[in-house]
Amino acid sequence: MSSNSDTNTKWIFSFTEGDGKNKKLLGGKGANLCEMTQFGLNVPPGFVITTDACLDFLDSKDNELPATVMEQVKEQMLAVEKATGKNFGDAKNPLLVSVRSGSALSMPGMMDTILNLGLNSETLQGEIEQTGDARFGYDTYRRFIQLFGKVALGIDDEFFDKQFDAVKQDAHVREDVGLSAQNLKEVSERFLKVIEEQTGRPFPQDPYEQLEISIKAVFNSWSGKRAVDYRREFNITPEMANGTAVNICTMVFGNRGDDSGTGVAFTRNPGTGNNDLFGEYLVNAQGEDVVAGIRTPKQIVELADEMPEMARQLEQLRQNLEEHYCEVQDFEFTIERGILYCLQTRNGKMNAAAMVRTSVEMEQEGLITREEALLRVDPAILEQMLYPQLDPANKTRPLAQGLAASPGAACGHAVFDADRAETLGRDGGQRVILLREETKPEDIHGFFAAEGILTSRGGKTSHAAVVARSMGKPCVAGAEDVSVDVSKREAYVGDAVIKEGDLITIDGSIGDVYLGEIATVEPEFTPQLETLLEWADDAAKLLVMANADTPDDAQRAVTYGARGIGLCRTERMFNSIERLPIVIEMIVAENSDERSAALDKLLPMQREDFKGLFKTMSPHPVTIRLLDPPIHEFLPSERQLMDDLENLYHLRRSVSGMDILAGTMALLHSPEEARKEAAEMRGYIELHVLEEAIAKKEAMLQKVRVLYETNPMLGHRGVRLGITFPEIYAMQIRAVLEATAECAAEGIEIHPQVMVPQVCTAEELKHVKRSADSIRKDVEAAVGTEVEFHFGTMIEVVRACMRADSLAEQADFFSFGTNDLTQATFSFSREDAENKFLPMYNDNGILQDNPFEVLDVKGVGKLMKLAVKWGREVRPDLKVGICGEHGGHPASIKFCQQAGLNYVSCSAPRVPVARLAAAHAALMK
Amino acid sequence: MSSNSDTNTKWIFSFTEGDGKNKKLLGGKGANLCEMTQFGLNVPPGFVITTDACLDFLDSKDNELPATVMEQVKEQMLAVEKATGKNFGDAKNPLLVSVRSGSALSMPGMMDTILNLGLNSETLQGEIEQTGDARFGYDTYRRFIQLFGKVALGIDDEFFDKQFDAVKQDAHVREDVGLSAQNLKEVSERFLKVIEEQTGRPFPQDPYEQLEISIKAVFNSWSGKRAVDYRREFNITPEMANGTAVNICTMVFGNRGDDSGTGVAFTRNPGTGNNDLFGEYLVNAQGEDVVAGIRTPKQIVELADEMPEMARQLEQLRQNLEEHYCEVQDFEFTIERGILYCLQTRNGKMNAAAMVRTSVEMEQEGLITREEALLRVDPAILEQMLYPQLDPANKTRPLAQGLAASPGAACGHAVFDADRAETLGRDGGQRVILLREETKPEDIHGFFAAEGILTSRGGKTSHAAVVARSMGKPCVAGAEDVSVDVSKREAYVGDAVIKEGDLITIDGSIGDVYLGEIATVEPEFTPQLETLLEWADDAAKLLVMANADTPDDAQRAVTYGARGIGLCRTERMFNSIERLPIVIEMIVAENSDERSAALDKLLPMQREDFKGLFKTMSPHPVTIRLLDPPIHEFLPSERQLMDDLENLYHLRRSVSGMDILAGTMALLHSPEEARKEAAEMRGYIELHVLEEAIAKKEAMLQKVRVLYETNPMLGHRGVRLGITFPEIYAMQIRAVLEATAECAAEGIEIHPQVMVPQVCTAEELKHVKRSADSIRKDVEAAVGTEVEFHFGTMIEVVRACMRADSLAEQADFFSFGTNDLTQATFSFSREDAENKFLPMYNDNGILQDNPFEVLDVKGVGKLMKLAVKWGREVRPDLKVGICGEHGGHPASIKFCQQAGLNYVSCSAPRVPVARLAAAHAALMK
Repeated sequence: MSSNSDTNTKWIFSFTEGDGKNKKLLGGKGANLCEMTQFGLNVPPGFVITTDACLDFLDSKDNELPATVMEQVKEQMLAVEKATGKNFGDAKNPLLVSVRSGSALSMPGMMDTILNLGLNSETLQGEIEQTGDARFGYDTYRRFIQLFGKVALGIDDEFFDKQFDAVKQDAHVREDVGLSAQNLKEVSERFLKVIEEQTGRPFPQDPYEQLEISIKAVFNSWSGKRAVDYRREFNITPEMANGTAVNICTMVFGNRGDDSGTGVAFTRNPGTGNNDLFGEYLVNAQGEDVVAGIRTPKQIVELADEMPEMARQLEQLRQNLEEHYCEVQDFEFTIERGILYCLQTRNGKMNAAAMVRTSVEMEQEGLITREEALLRVDPAILEQMLYPQLDPANKTRPLAQGLAASPGAACGHAVFDADRAETLGRDGGQRVILLREETKPEDIHGFFAAEGILTSRGGKTSHAAVVARSMGKPCVAGAEDVSVDVSKREAYVGDAVIKEGDLITIDGSIGDVYLGEIATVEPEFTPQLETLLEWADDAAKLLVMANADTPDDAQRAVTYGARGIGLCRTERMFNSIERLPIVIEMIVAENSDERSAALDKLLPMQREDFKGLFKTMSPHPVTIRLLDPPIHEFLPSERQLMDDLENLYHLRRSVSGMDILAGTMALLHSPEEARKEAAEMRGYIELHVLEEAIAKKEAMLQKVRVLYETNPMLGHRGVRLGITFPEIYAMQIRAVLEATAECAAEGIEIHPQVMVPQVCTAEELKHVKRSADSIRKDVEAAVGTEVEFHFGTMIEVVRACMRADSLAEQADFFSFGTNDLTQATFSFSREDAENKFLPMYNDNGILQDNPFEVLDVKGVGKLMKLAVKWGREVRPDLKVGICGEHGGHPASIKFCQQAGLNYVSCSAPRVPVARLAAAHAALMK
Repeated sequence: MSSNSDTNTKWIFSFTEGDGKNKKLLGGKGANLCEMTQFGLNVPPGFVITTDACLDFLDSKDNELPATVMEQVKEQMLAVEKATGKNFGDAKNPLLVSVRSGSALSMPGMMDTILNLGLNSETLQGEIEQTGDARFGYDTYRRFIQLFGKVALGIDDEFFDKQFDAVKQDAHVREDVGLSAQNLKEVSERFLKVIEEQTGRPFPQDPYEQLEISIKAVFNSWSGKRAVDYRREFNITPEMANGTAVNICTMVFGNRGDDSGTGVAFTRNPGTGNNDLFGEYLVNAQGEDVVAGIRTPKQIVELADEMPEMARQLEQLRQNLEEHYCEVQDFEFTIERGILYCLQTRNGKMNAAAMVRTSVEMEQEGLITREEALLRVDPAILEQMLYPQLDPANKTRPLAQGLAASPGAACGHAVFDADRAETLGRDGGQRVILLREETKPEDIHGFFAAEGILTSRGGKTSHAAVVARSMGKPCVAGAEDVSVDVSKREAYVGDAVIKEGDLITIDGSIGDVYLGEIATVEPEFTPQLETLLEWADDAAKLLVMANADTPDDAQRAVTYGARGIGLCRTERMFNSIERLPIVIEMIVAENSDERSAALDKLLPMQREDFKGLFKTMSPHPVTIRLLDPPIHEFLPSERQLMDDLENLYHLRRSVSGMDILAGTMALLHSPEEARKEAAEMRGYIELHVLEEAIAKKEAMLQKVRVLYETNPMLGHRGVRLGITFPEIYAMQIRAVLEATAECAAEGIEIHPQVMVPQVCTAEELKHVKRSADSIRKDVEAAVGTEVEFHFGTMIEVVRACMRADSLAEQADFFSFGTNDLTQATFSFSREDAENKFLPMYNDNGILQDNPFEVLDVKGVGKLMKLAVKWGREVRPDLKVGICGEHGGHPASIKFCQQAGLNYVSCSAPRVPVARLAAAHAALMK
């Protein structure tokens, strides 16, 4: 006896009585069948054996079903017989059923379907009579025997295949379709023998015995190795799904003639969201024929011509499904002799555009509420709509894989340096992909000219990745299988060669690299998306701003609906080709005067930058972060310089060597000739030019070594730089305030915000504020009007969180820089961690997520909450935002709302994602 | 009229009535005189004009004294006249007084003393009659006129000096002592004329006028520029000192004959603490004679022979002073005609040894309580007693200055590499100082052989500094004026040259470098220090442990009273000359098997290390920290390897070049000779040896580049390393447990604690704990007994603080690593910060202290308190300690007690400091 056995326990529910919401008890499929039946769809009659019965069975010592199960099965079968007018085991008009597993969660590894159960040598004859098709009858029978043998009795397919092949050989037939009814009869007889040989018992002829064996097999499959492994792998706990139900359903046949058929359809187009039935069908066919791909199915629109009444019924079914489920449905149907049955339905999987369109239109049709429409769309998928994607139809295999460093797909001619990118791309009008081992600030013009960037070294935070993301260009970084030989203008992947000019395609959303051109699909900011995001803005509590460094960025951000700039990284403005030399001049300056002279040249440029941003973003606020990175980032690397010098030294030795060689030769040939020869050789390189180049490089190397830091992340940067070289911040603040004054004079409404990076103590803020106030007075005196600005601080140093109270005395606003804050909280250098141990930490479950992608609520988030609390204790109206990469991540945005932030700021392409996520955060509390 | 004037205000207090504790009103000096007078010392009669009078005077519009001040002065003078039997302005027996300033805090910049006030042409005659010494009279007079003129009237000394020189010239006298009474009379007359010429008024003959002018001059000096600047510079607020008092005191003369004299003395010896009067005196002399150094004073012990009665009185005075003040006093006395006067006393400044000895002995004598004895000694000074110091008498100027990287002084012969240090030092028995540009792990044998280390590059956290501190050897680091030329075996400082073998002396407590030998004073762990520290242990609540990596370290720690090892850095054990090659073998291992093979060699070494520590420290706990630093720290730097390779390549080119050159030469000379020559040249270097060396270096460079990290502080280290290369921690844990088992078998009581570094999440701890538990079972099975150990975590990552609750579920103890925690909290890399911006931050007041030296209570401390709170909520008996450098700093120790820590751990030489600081923390709450 099994443990929970109780003669009163109801183990079984008919489709007409089961609770369609109780997936736990009935499994997902069973509940679905009950629900469909009960709201009036034509589902073939049937019933569900509960998961409780499964658990009871598995608990039992002797692997016995609960005592009353088979009794209840028989009761239910009587009801089904009554509903169908057929009888189970009847030799005239036999009832055949399918048996399927189904737990609360869809889960591979459990028992497959058994079809046509109920056939035996007697009922087979009834079936043949009913259909008038002996071949169909024997074919159905042999299929049933094999499926039952394999699935319920565990007999390997090979035993059946061997017999099947033998019959084919005897009949001199190659394809299954060539077999006659007689051949298939022999097959079924041989299959019955296989069963007997393998199990030592004859094939069960009693349909109820077939049914009981099948039910037990389904239950046992719950504790089979594959299912158990799957549950462990995906952390499926008993609370989520425990045991499987068994669904027993009347067989219907779509292959009963030209008035029969079968198909699958979506209630709306899952690719476009178009409000029309979308799908395929086959006349006179079973579902497995559609799957097997032997016949080419027809588009559902053709059904109206072929079977107009069926088309009408199907349209009715579509409406019933949507009215009931209020979501786009993906359903299966069968037509048996002019009667339409719905066999299964589930929410349709759609691409982003379709998801957005159907959600908005369903709201407009009154099917769902605005809130439902918003919550239905996963914010993360919106990004798809903003970047070019590879054509989903693409089947080409990638040549190499790297890191998905900046999303989007692009195709272009491979070029191996930035100058060439400019020549071919900007000047030559070609699409190019910049392909480098790694990139440097001096390659920036190549980024502008290229469609996308591919590097063979570096991670998601490498220069290439960061700059590409900031420009919104696709980038695949660190594709380590690609080896680049710049001197030969070739790259290699295994045996494949990419020559300069060859077309390549990269997919920065995934990290794939392809040889040749792969078609891409352009992004579209659809009217429905705009509508959805307007609703989102109404619902949201968090304001969404953008990280933008140039007027172009800002324009894009405005298009995407950003309500201001939360972070403008001024150092990005230093990186352009015409400014970098001035920046380097400023860095290598020997004293404050030289430094100021260089800064004076940068001032008007920065002022124009800011004016451009202010105008584009008016009337929204623009937050200018003062210079942040260590200044050595603007210089070439030590290794680069050493390599360059090595080459120059080598050249110098060669040049000098030529003199020696020439001297030696003079002894051999005539002195006259030797002199001439030596002069010619030297002519190739003017020694003094070489010496100058060497001196310049050596000076630069010297400076790089002086500026060297063992841990640049934690080094001389941000406000520390601003305090040691006050001229730099003074220039930037003056540029902001002068731009403000000029915009004001033009009548443009702007709200500039100056933000100080890397702050760890209020004294730093006071220091910068004093300077800013004095510059403000200066500028005000010059223009004769007041110049307003807000003054705030990044919170990206842990100590800033600890001292949030005293920082709030100085700052009008806080902006969490969660990239740096995460690094400091974990003591992880992102670059090193992602290369060296984070993947391993994620694999071993030591960390659930990469904290640089998903905000670490328990650590970093805890700090943030403390900082917000302490800051607002001092300044209750303190504005608090976030401007790290996390600012665009839905889960992190939810946390930001819980933590009481006022705004999030993220890169322009993530603004739509963030707007919707902000609405979710507000609605899902 | 001045603001506070009130006819009832008491502006003046006699020495017999003023409140000796009210320094604010009477000034420090005035209060002291009152106190001395009132507890019965023989102080010349006098009185104090209050600081209130000063403030009132300075507030007055017309620079007038409060109305009643001079009235009260006259009343007081009457009392003084009565007490002395002399009369102010009397021509027969005149009363002379001194006038001195004195505010609540001693402060330079205020008015100097005026002596002998009251002299004029009449009283001068009385004074001459009284003393019977005309020369003395005129000398006194001319001194008074000049002092008064200079100090009270502001006349420059040069006017007086000119007249004085003229008289000397006229008298053909070179030295002052050669001047007769007549000469000095003329000097005084000329001085009176100077006064009249410079002020336009004759010298004030009226003593009360002299007095009033002097009082006003003292008051005015409070608001003089120098005094105001001083107060601003040292942040002296009005709450601390406001206004100066004026002290008017009867003159006594030690130069009234052989029954007179003057001297200064300490109640105990300030150099040794010896309980005997210590000081100097001069017979028939004034205090200024002692200061001027014209006559050589005698030791106070001689007074007993010369003036036995005076010696008895002085001994009595000494006892009175100590009984009253209960501290060693530094006092001034004058004997006038057999009467002993005490003119001033203050607490004596003593060196550390004397401070300790007198405090302990005073407790034993019942003068002070044990608590007072403990609190009297500043813990920081104890370090003096543990290191050799430069002889305080040293007057040599340092040759160069560097950073005080490891305390103590040492002298030795300069050597320029570690091998030479070993040859001369260890093998040759000479004292050597290792002088390098910077040091590397491969120099470690040089450290062992040297008395001290001097480097020209690197900061307080450079390799040299860290290793020297860990060995307790003096080190001066980053002496940038020293330029080292290893190839010439010379170093240069300006024009000076240090050749190998030259004696140099370094003072690592200060950072000074000297040419030649400077005498040093050896440290002494005195019995009194031991007594004091035993009392400290009784009073303290925090346990003091030591950071120690070797049995020698541990032995030193035991000597200094450590109650366990709080931190054993196992990586230090990897650095020894015979182990480093095995460690490198482990690092360059291509796979886990190769790595394990290298680790197997290290296992027995580590086991012996641990046994040594356990035995030395028994029965106290020993805390073993598993490997912490990134493994690339054990390899040479990329630059070093590139330089080496560059040299090797050059060599290879030369070797090849010789062939070419030889070939060319063959054309010039006989071919035979050329072949010979070429072979000889090649003979110097075997090409294949060179190629092998190059290949090895290239492989190493490759590995270094693979292991390269942009921010090693935040990189692949600590537990992250332990998890990615589990073999390393497994080896270390096994070594600990096997050592534990072996000690247990020998009956030695030990308490091993295994500590995991760089932890940021409980999952990391669980991971290591699982491994440790399985190794424990292994070891237990092998030895057949239980092996006990405690398992804990460093808290040095910010996230560990945030997750302290979940870490406490895994850890028996927490140990704060405040060095790393400070770096992470500030986002400061210590090395970079101290070189690049911290000094500037300190100078500008942005940070009060270097947070790596003084624990940042407001930021790092706040985090620590949160971690302790959250940790103890989960595990109330959680043991919490600190093992960063802060663990030995008194202020930080005080914080640790407030934060509820159980123990502090610091380097051995700081253990005594910490023990006393822990007592202070307990007593001063």
